[in-house]
Amino acid sequence: MALILGIDPGSRITGFGLVSAHGSRQEYVASGCIRTAIKASLAEKLVEIFAGVTEIIQQYGPDELAIEKVFMAKSADSALKLGQARGAAIVAGASLGLAVFEYEARKIKQAVVGTGAADKSQVQHMVQTLLKLPGQPQQDAADALAIALCHINTQQSLARVAGANSFRRGRMVNLGADSKP
Amino acid sequence: MALILGIDPGSRITGFGLVSAHGSRQEYVASGCIRTAIKASLAEKLVEIFAGVTEIIQQYGPDELAIEKVFMAKSADSALKLGQARGAAIVAGASLGLAVFEYEARKIKQAVVGTGAADKSQVQHMVQTLLKLPGQPQQDAADALAIALCHINTQQSLARVAGANSFRRGRMVNLGADSKP
Repeated sequence: MALILGIDPGSRITGFGLVSAHGSRQEYVASGCIRTAIKASLAEKLVEIFAGVTEIIQQYGPDELAIEKVFMAKSADSALKLGQARGAAIVAGASLGLAVFEYEARKIKQAVVGTGAADKSQVQHMVQTLLKLPGQPQQDAADALAIALCHINTQQSLARVAGANSFRRGRMVNLGADSKP
Repeated sequence: MALILGIDPGSRITGFGLVSAHGSRQEYVASGCIRTAIKASLAEKLVEIFAGVTEIIQQYGPDELAIEKVFMAKSADSALKLGQARGAAIVAGASLGLAVFEYEARKIKQAVVGTGAADKSQVQHMVQTLLKLPGQPQQDAADALAIALCHINTQQSLARVAGANSFRRGRMVNLGADSKP
């Protein structure tokens, strides 16, 4: 069993989502948003994000943190704001010892909707379906849950490939042993 | 006496400088750089910055943190990297209770060189002169010391204005009292 924390950081709203993985089964644990006060200073906003992520980690004890990889920001100004929020969120997880994994937006959408070109509402809808939620999660929370799901799928695929590889290597060794005179 | 920590954050090198202010006297306390490993992951780099700033604060116990305000980044990509480093540095100070002050590059150069259009080597030279250092500090450390000096000058100017205002207010009250019949 692994518990994954997905984070979708932003200077105003940081979404979070916790999903546990038991073999091929995925289960919703919690999700929500850290909202910073509009009138707060930059430092106050970053501390709210940092303290919020720290609290979530201390409460739920996730094993790994997954976050969206920023490929291309809209503008230098929005990139700076997003970078600061990401810095605060990543440092909260990494300083508590969590391994941090980054996934491109395309890959996250591909993992939950099946196409990298999916829009936000499709992501919300599929997160609700995959995790059998009674209602649609808030957009940033849904994005965070999608990131967690993407991480779980990716790790499971890697584990299958690694398993297949060792199996093949095992057979090759056997074959090699068999072929010895 | 107030001890000011100036920080010049960057994803590769984060400069820091500590300057104490006793009335109109300013004294060099310490300066240096936090260098992140080139091959480190983003999370590892941010933790190095966060842990480095935390360690400096715990060792020296500064009263306030001053940092350069980013007005216009070169590109969205560099803004994101700078934002992440800033986020890690600011959160380290603010989560330990330090007030954080931001100053535009122009204002910092104006404070130490006398012109907002000064180049990096002029800043290094004037920081060395103002703080009576035996040698020129490394560039990022010099920038951090300049930020601390700018903060001290600004606070002292504000204190002088506030002092003048209360003095004027005091006189007005006295005048009012004197003018009573």
